[in-house]
Amino acid sequence: MAPKITTALDVMGGDEGAAVALPGAELALARHSDLHFRLYGDEAVVKPLLEFYPRLKAASVFEHCEVAIRMDDKPSQALRRGRGRSSMWQAIEAVKTGAADYAVSAGNTGALMAMATFCLKTAGEVERPAIAGLWPTLKGESVVLDLGATIGATAELLFEFAVMGAAMSRALTGKPRPRVGLLNIGVEEVKGLEQIRDAGRRLREADLGNLDYVGFVEGDDIGKGTVDVVVTEGFTGNIALKTAEGTAKQIAGYLRDGMRRTLLARLGYLLARDAFSRLKTKMDPSRVNGGVFLGLNGIVIKSHGRTDAAGFAAEVGERGTDQPNLLAIELRDRADHLGKAEGERPGSHLVVDAPSGL
Amino acid sequence: MAPKITTALDVMGGDEGAAVALPGAELALARHSDLHFRLYGDEAVVKPLLEFYPRLKAASVFEHCEVAIRMDDKPSQALRRGRGRSSMWQAIEAVKTGAADYAVSAGNTGALMAMATFCLKTAGEVERPAIAGLWPTLKGESVVLDLGATIGATAELLFEFAVMGAAMSRALTGKPRPRVGLLNIGVEEVKGLEQIRDAGRRLREADLGNLDYVGFVEGDDIGKGTVDVVVTEGFTGNIALKTAEGTAKQIAGYLRDGMRRTLLARLGYLLARDAFSRLKTKMDPSRVNGGVFLGLNGIVIKSHGRTDAAGFAAEVGERGTDQPNLLAIELRDRADHLGKAEGERPGSHLVVDAPSGL
Repeated sequence: MAPKITTALDVMGGDEGAAVALPGAELALARHSDLHFRLYGDEAVVKPLLEFYPRLKAASVFEHCEVAIRMDDKPSQALRRGRGRSSMWQAIEAVKTGAADYAVSAGNTGALMAMATFCLKTAGEVERPAIAGLWPTLKGESVVLDLGATIGATAELLFEFAVMGAAMSRALTGKPRPRVGLLNIGVEEVKGLEQIRDAGRRLREADLGNLDYVGFVEGDDIGKGTVDVVVTEGFTGNIALKTAEGTAKQIAGYLRDGMRRTLLARLGYLLARDAFSRLKTKMDPSRVNGGVFLGLNGIVIKSHGRTDAAGFAAEVGERGTDQPNLLAIELRDRADHLGKAEGERPGSHLVVDAPSGL
Repeated sequence: MAPKITTALDVMGGDEGAAVALPGAELALARHSDLHFRLYGDEAVVKPLLEFYPRLKAASVFEHCEVAIRMDDKPSQALRRGRGRSSMWQAIEAVKTGAADYAVSAGNTGALMAMATFCLKTAGEVERPAIAGLWPTLKGESVVLDLGATIGATAELLFEFAVMGAAMSRALTGKPRPRVGLLNIGVEEVKGLEQIRDAGRRLREADLGNLDYVGFVEGDDIGKGTVDVVVTEGFTGNIALKTAEGTAKQIAGYLRDGMRRTLLARLGYLLARDAFSRLKTKMDPSRVNGGVFLGLNGIVIKSHGRTDAAGFAAEVGERGTDQPNLLAIELRDRADHLGKAEGERPGSHLVVDAPSGL
């Protein structure tokens, strides 16, 4: 039914590069046989490795790129060194030209943001992009943004993030009016940073038809699933994400130690192991790894810097079926609501083009 | 051996006020019989309730205060309304006059910070106070600051926080040179906010003898216990704390559900329940609740807004024996190191007075 989806993959991105990206893509193919890949990387590295993944080899085209962006390249360095020639740039450009539906990279966030913004340009009046992730909660999953693309967002930008996050939530969950909260250090209206209070006022006044702004939420509301969309700027969002991952690992550590301590506890563990394995899946950071770049003229997926093959597969696979299409439609759609809210002609600004080929 | 320690308690502070503060203090007394209390609050509320806690009644003096600071009072409002007359102010002033060794309040953070700063004044050249908390980690406990007192700290202030946090770590753990890290969104020197990079440079150049600056740490390093002291500004610190609490509750929820699902899992739970109860203690947010105000001429302990009686007891009890003395000595002591580091006469500035009465 769904048209074939092409993923442009920066094979050199991330701490592990091709050693993780290729098996990840192979795994994604095993789950979703209708995927197609464009692989960008150093042929000396990628070509020999690709022989071990015949399924991926058959479902992909490979393009050699001279430059691989390093994890410690500054964004400006990365742009200078890698513009046009790097695997990261080429993957993004494939989205621009329509050769791919979306790009995936585990490369360094700053460089990826700089390149994606430079190549695809921000959409309409959006000033800076955001990275949105799916966060497992007690009620299911919530969209959380920004996870590290834009440090220190203004009120205008937080407003934009709320609108874009709601669009992603609608695309992924089908809820017509997702509940949106602004992350703050208290739920009272007098608390927190001025730009957050200001964004809250704007969201309340705009009273958008396709999102339900419920006010401020705190750090512990994320895991509770109090809202469908949690909005914050990139520094805080990234700290929150990694702190949650760290806490999950910490508790797993306590649990493991506790279970090893006595024979009875070990027996208990054996009897309850189904429950544990379900828990492990829910807590697994590789399942929440990465996120979707929102606010650009095309979809770029940032994969976690320390991802593993399963994490990569989750990225590519989960969002690799028809979700990019839905997402693009939703992002285009939101312009109507925004236009109405601001008393302008629907769709007159903030139009996010669907990636060509959709 | 240790001299009797007097706690000034703002009984009206927090969402629950006296209903939590009084049983909390009673519980703390049960654990540490050498505590003494000065209770500040509305006599119409406190006097009848106090009859239910005979041990606390015997070990305390009560002072009526006309005003109770509300959780939604702005700091400026709180100061106007409550200066001199509120239970929060009176508890803090007892530290200033020497009637108490430290003050405890679960009242709203902004108001408490404003009042504590106004009444006690910041110590030496410290610009703004920080709230430091003890965070359970895989290796034990780490000091994390600031948890919400100072929003948006400068490089100078982050440097100060590092020094004060290390002093607290030395006082509580006895380690002569605690490992200190700055919380950032990457461990590379090029990443994150300018003021954090700047604070890192200063700490590296200062090369202090009583702390070991190890560089940037990320959110997941907190739970790992990578460093003894994690330094950040108050907004981020508060989000991180609450996100970790939320994640712990979330995982407990998953676990509970998983264990109820099948008969085998339930049996497993019974066999392993010792391990679970140990885990619960370690994850319990009421054990990490609150924190110590650092950077003022006297010790004020902020208790979590949503604490319960056990949480209050943990605050008062754990830090209510000889730890305030040690902390005061350490904070005074750090002035020497700082003086040396900056080429001045040791102790010539940044002297933090021990609360009178120690």
